[in-house]
Amino acid sequence: MRSLIDIVDFSLEEVEELIQVACDIDAHPEKYAEACKGKKLATLFFEPSTRTRLSFEAAMYELGGNVIGFSEAGSSSASKGESVADTAKVISCYADIIAMRHPLEGAPLVASRNATVPVINAGDGGHLHPTQTLTDLLTIHREKGRIDNLTVGFCGDLKYGRTVHSLISALSRYQNVKIVLISPKELAIPDYVKSDVMDLNGMCYEEIESLEKALPELDILYMTRIQRERFDDLETYERLKDSYILTAEKMRDAKADMCILHPLPRVNEISVEIDSDPRACYFRQVLNGKLIRMALILKLLAEKDREEDRDEGEELSSFVCKNPRCITSTEQELNQKFRSVELKERVYRCIYCEKDAVHKEEI
Amino acid sequence: MRSLIDIVDFSLEEVEELIQVACDIDAHPEKYAEACKGKKLATLFFEPSTRTRLSFEAAMYELGGNVIGFSEAGSSSASKGESVADTAKVISCYADIIAMRHPLEGAPLVASRNATVPVINAGDGGHLHPTQTLTDLLTIHREKGRIDNLTVGFCGDLKYGRTVHSLISALSRYQNVKIVLISPKELAIPDYVKSDVMDLNGMCYEEIESLEKALPELDILYMTRIQRERFDDLETYERLKDSYILTAEKMRDAKADMCILHPLPRVNEISVEIDSDPRACYFRQVLNGKLIRMALILKLLAEKDREEDRDEGEELSSFVCKNPRCITSTEQELNQKFRSVELKERVYRCIYCEKDAVHKEEI
Amino acid sequence: MRSLIDIVDFSLEEVEELIQVACDIDAHPEKYAEACKGKKLATLFFEPSTRTRLSFEAAMYELGGNVIGFSEAGSSSASKGESVADTAKVISCYADIIAMRHPLEGAPLVASRNATVPVINAGDGGHLHPTQTLTDLLTIHREKGRIDNLTVGFCGDLKYGRTVHSLISALSRYQNVKIVLISPKELAIPDYVKSDVMDLNGMCYEEIESLEKALPELDILYMTRIQRERFDDLETYERLKDSYILTAEKMRDAKADMCILHPLPRVNEISVEIDSDPRACYFRQVLNGKLIRMALILKLLAEKDREEDRDEGEELSSFVCKNPRCITSTEQELNQKFRSVELKERVYRCIYCEKDAVHKEEI
Repeated sequence: MRSLIDIVDFSLEEVEELIQVACDIDAHPEKYAEACKGKKLATLFFEPSTRTRLSFEAAMYELGGNVIGFSEAGSSSASKGESVADTAKVISCYADIIAMRHPLEGAPLVASRNATVPVINAGDGGHLHPTQTLTDLLTIHREKGRIDNLTVGFCGDLKYGRTVHSLISALSRYQNVKIVLISPKELAIPDYVKSDVMDLNGMCYEEIESLEKALPELDILYMTRIQRERFDDLETYERLKDSYILTAEKMRDAKADMCILHPLPRVNEISVEIDSDPRACYFRQVLNGKLIRMALILKLLAEKDREEDRDEGEELSSFVCKNPRCITSTEQELNQKFRSVELKERVYRCIYCEKDAVHKEEI
Repeated sequence: MRSLIDIVDFSLEEVEELIQVACDIDAHPEKYAEACKGKKLATLFFEPSTRTRLSFEAAMYELGGNVIGFSEAGSSSASKGESVADTAKVISCYADIIAMRHPLEGAPLVASRNATVPVINAGDGGHLHPTQTLTDLLTIHREKGRIDNLTVGFCGDLKYGRTVHSLISALSRYQNVKIVLISPKELAIPDYVKSDVMDLNGMCYEEIESLEKALPELDILYMTRIQRERFDDLETYERLKDSYILTAEKMRDAKADMCILHPLPRVNEISVEIDSDPRACYFRQVLNGKLIRMALILKLLAEKDREEDRDEGEELSSFVCKNPRCITSTEQELNQKFRSVELKERVYRCIYCEKDAVHKEEI
Repeated sequence: MRSLIDIVDFSLEEVEELIQVACDIDAHPEKYAEACKGKKLATLFFEPSTRTRLSFEAAMYELGGNVIGFSEAGSSSASKGESVADTAKVISCYADIIAMRHPLEGAPLVASRNATVPVINAGDGGHLHPTQTLTDLLTIHREKGRIDNLTVGFCGDLKYGRTVHSLISALSRYQNVKIVLISPKELAIPDYVKSDVMDLNGMCYEEIESLEKALPELDILYMTRIQRERFDDLETYERLKDSYILTAEKMRDAKADMCILHPLPRVNEISVEIDSDPRACYFRQVLNGKLIRMALILKLLAEKDREEDRDEGEELSSFVCKNPRCITSTEQELNQKFRSVELKERVYRCIYCEKDAVHKEEI
């Protein structure tokens, strides 16, 4: 059984194949209108995310299938204390494929190991959101005609931005992508993204505080929102917030064919006046999100019988995952498992949330 | 792009056409069973309204289409601060037509100006609810064979009853409709409905406090609920409430072919014993609601490419809309716009909520 | 109009027929894939129950039909004070069949008497849940090849367990079923189940506190959850809780072909290690739930025109139902009705909640 939990579950060739299918769907929707006839997608959203949920549902309907599910945990069996594993086993009796959003990191992975149907990770806490990353890659491909040989700027909250980290990881597999990290110091990219992703893959990157200064060299600008609650003091927030708002004036210095991406929802970080600028790609990005999810559903249903090559991890008596947002903190009878980290000795990571494990002697 | 925000967006001929199609759907449902195959309706209910939502959804399914959406704001992106305009742009990537319910007045108008698919106003706060009005008109047409030459009584809360104001407006376009307004003084029809609708169109109307006295002359009785919270003092409420409850006894004085309408839900303002009276039309009215929505969806999808003739309003530097329930109070980067009022000099109304604008000097 | 409110609404032959159809659906799903094309199921869930709701929805989709509805009361018209009767009349305009879950006992019965389409009771408070019982019967039939000549153990909370009481009632119609009641004294089966069901039908049963002792003789073990909040003192709970957890060790003494059933969700009363034991039937039971609901929907739609033979009950001036969780406590203009009890003189039961009526002189 194939599932999509992490973007790296798919090879570069598989991502390329998804992109090609998505483009073909857009060109010839009628070819796919009955592709999932009689099939059901379960959208299990343990926390609300309207955009992602409706994107999956629209995708399934455009393939001729149906949808069941829930849009928040309050109306699910989870409120009666059911484990994620049991939910996955039960829903496998009702649906042919599952899209799961969950506030706990690793929950979709647990689901995929218990379901008898494919599971798509539709976002697990602050951890992964691979269909957003596929959406971003498709958008870059469609707008620029390539994913390599690009200078990609990320602007805003690079510290907590899950979509930013995932896209950088995904881009690390392409040739000659230069990353420009535009943020206040308070929201700079975490060190582990630098060391484990960019350095490890020999990516070229620079960090800069000024959006204006960075703009002229960019082929892609990936905007994110700066949230007030991320700042310790309000003064710093007030001083910084306007510098990371993209306005028509700032856009004058950007390349004529630069593309602006945004995972949405936006609040005010991109001025509405830019919406009519042909370089604003974020609403086309929404359409791409539906198309890539259609391609993904088709792929996983087609490969239902293919064995997944997966890293089972190992139980380690002397290590423990202490992340309170990891699914292992609540799921009953789920043993913690770990994997070693490339190039690092005696460092292990939880296979569910990917946080560094803590040695029991250190506690 | 055609949308339906206000009943007056449609000409009398268009309303007549909708009524004819609705009747044809009822007579020959099989003709329409695949009319919307492959199409999707998005039901965006920012506040709950089960009856209206399920009516739209049943309508779309009976046309062979599908439905995506949400039933309350809590599970929507609005809770993350997304603007109505952005939601409309995003949903346009997922659905072929939108039905929007929103607590803020004017929100569906904002949506229709940003969506690339038709938008149906499924109720915006206390402002408009045009599909209820279409439902009422279809019911009158089917029950009486005509919409003109009728005496129509409205009973109950005429002050806050949005459906009452809208139906009176709609009836003002028909010949020889006499309006009888039955309510306690505390819940009398607002003056602007008298001046701007009934007087302006030369309608004949009378106000009366007694339901019993009014009943014998009525062809149609439109009942509404009297809510306790509308009264300043409980004593007045207790004194009045029973006089506006329709009972079998009171019905003895009504015409043998009078029709009772009610927008539902009812609480106790129509005694359950009346349900079996053939003059009780309110459950047939529910069925009509579904039929007219089917006709409406068909019409808007068919006219997707037709340019809408719309009043854009104008920005006025010296006027401002001060209505806290107007969408302009929260929507980011939405400039207030106004239109002048027929026969009134220097009076402007907000194009979104239609409340009178306030001159800045008066603030 | 046929509805399913109580399992005894169906004869033994009808239950048998449902089981046969469910098995045929499982063997030949393609025969049924368009059986409900153009039909709509309304899932009216006034309280959340994800598993039951999704089971109904999956069932309807696999029959080629569509689904409308809501998953909790908050987004329904009930919050505006609408009666269950009115809701049933309104939804009859939108859907071909209704599945209703309601916190008040008797609500689906009220719905079935007002709807013009069949109503399925999907659980009414602590009262009835007939589709769970049908699921249990189908599971026993499929696992054992018969429903008679069995020793069936019920373990855990037998006092409040609605599914337990219902299944014992259903089993009382089969030959030579022996019941073993395994629970702490605090959660023993209520006396009325003994007297009115098991004694009345001459069933053989025994009560026992030890799961280990009971296990070896069982053909079926029906597990339920013991909830901490059922105990007056925590000490008793702590002392007892582990003895009612089914573990691989305890399973060593069970028959090689014993079947473990559980209505789910489980919390920890069955160890996860047992899931891979072939005697664990509870996830196959989930699949059976979908199949039997498919058979049920087909049956009720096919018998839409058949008159139901029903006990209307009678109004009794000197008796009153005092159950605060009975639908008669809130539904407007619903008169209480009662029926006499077999073999008991001057005892009457409310036809809605089936609680004993109280004589007015006793109040």
